[in-house]
Amino acid sequence: GATKGVGMIEPRMATTLGFLTTDAAVEHSALQAMLRRAADATYNCLTVDGHQSTSDTLVLLASGEAMAGCDPIAEGSAEAAKFESALVAVCENLARQIVADAEGGTKVIEVRVTGAASDEEAARAARAIANSPLVKCAFFGEDPNWGRITSAAGGAGISSGADSMRLAIGGVLIFEKGTPVEAKAAKVKRAMKARDIIVRLDLGAGRGEARVLTCDLSYDYVKINASYTT
Amino acid sequence: GATKGVGMIEPRMATTLGFLTTDAAVEHSALQAMLRRAADATYNCLTVDGHQSTSDTLVLLASGEAMAGCDPIAEGSAEAAKFESALVAVCENLARQIVADAEGGTKVIEVRVTGAASDEEAARAARAIANSPLVKCAFFGEDPNWGRITSAAGGAGISSGADSMRLAIGGVLIFEKGTPVEAKAAKVKRAMKARDIIVRLDLGAGRGEARVLTCDLSYDYVKINASYTT
Repeated sequence: GATKGVGMIEPRMATTLGFLTTDAAVEHSALQAMLRRAADATYNCLTVDGHQSTSDTLVLLASGEAMAGCDPIAEGSAEAAKFESALVAVCENLARQIVADAEGGTKVIEVRVTGAASDEEAARAARAIANSPLVKCAFFGEDPNWGRITSAAGGAGISSGADSMRLAIGGVLIFEKGTPVEAKAAKVKRAMKARDIIVRLDLGAGRGEARVLTCDLSYDYVKINASYTT
Repeated sequence: GATKGVGMIEPRMATTLGFLTTDAAVEHSALQAMLRRAADATYNCLTVDGHQSTSDTLVLLASGEAMAGCDPIAEGSAEAAKFESALVAVCENLARQIVADAEGGTKVIEVRVTGAASDEEAARAARAIANSPLVKCAFFGEDPNWGRITSAAGGAGISSGADSMRLAIGGVLIFEKGTPVEAKAAKVKRAMKARDIIVRLDLGAGRGEARVLTCDLSYDYVKINASYTT
């Protein structure tokens, strides 16, 4: 697999380009269905700057060379499940490389929202957190700003209030029942120094969940995008 | 009137505070209705960073001192229309001051979208433009980046394509029928040097319209919001 994309990136399979090849033989309809699911689980869960491009493309080509003389892999088969698992792993790796290589980005942040009233509410909250310039600047500054994270979620039109939210950064619980967990301040500050950070927010409302991969917002993002001329 | 707010600002009456006083005597219900309309036309049309706060407040107090012995101004009257016009002017002035004073902001940008299929589509397109970090960095760099503006609108789930869009910056038409108007490049670059800039985007689809006031995204926004600690 090979991929491209540094800015203008919030794919909903929109300037992101991805090319995958395999020497397996796979039925065309099965390949298309698997690629769509893999894209939804990986490429479509990343945002660099919340600005969808006009030309996101993800292509998967199967030559069949490794399986000359065999029947192509059919949808629903055990081979298809194995192939899809490998496909998702490749797409996840490429999607993370895009975020790691983002314009001005210094960190890869995975926002995982659980306990939402629906998957759709979870996705809205996760994208609001991942796209907030205040949240992204806080990560650049390595400040565990629970207020910006919870309020970004709260402003996304969800049915949960701060009282039911639980927030952990890098595995350290820092906000619960409407108040910060003060004892953990030093620990979570250390967690903020990592290059890869997982943010978990449970909304305490239901079983909906979603995740979004994003990066921080740095001086270099501004430099690159203010000095570029059309 | 007095107002406060520099960051975490996309009011839908949400940390924005506004306090208005008048010595006119106005019926309570009329005052409430006029304030709500004025807020929708001004405060609720501004965004600094697309991050709604938890505590936007706009209060209007009427002492009635200037009109002792008179009947209070009633809803629907000619006096009410005059009062509301003055109220909107005060709110517009305060809303612009918030944008002019935004964290790191160097420009006040008014995004006016017309010709949308509906007012709601126009509002979605205007907010997508105003909240795109790519668009905001381009304004900081004084680059008339028509591609970022039109693609931000296009990614907002509207029914118009680039072929039907017309874009003018500072009164200079720079994009029409899917292509940039090259002859105007020097003129529009001069327009970008102003502190107050009007961006007009017509979507060519209907009669829906909306406007949003915003600022650019500078190094100072990142500095202020990365060095702040909770």
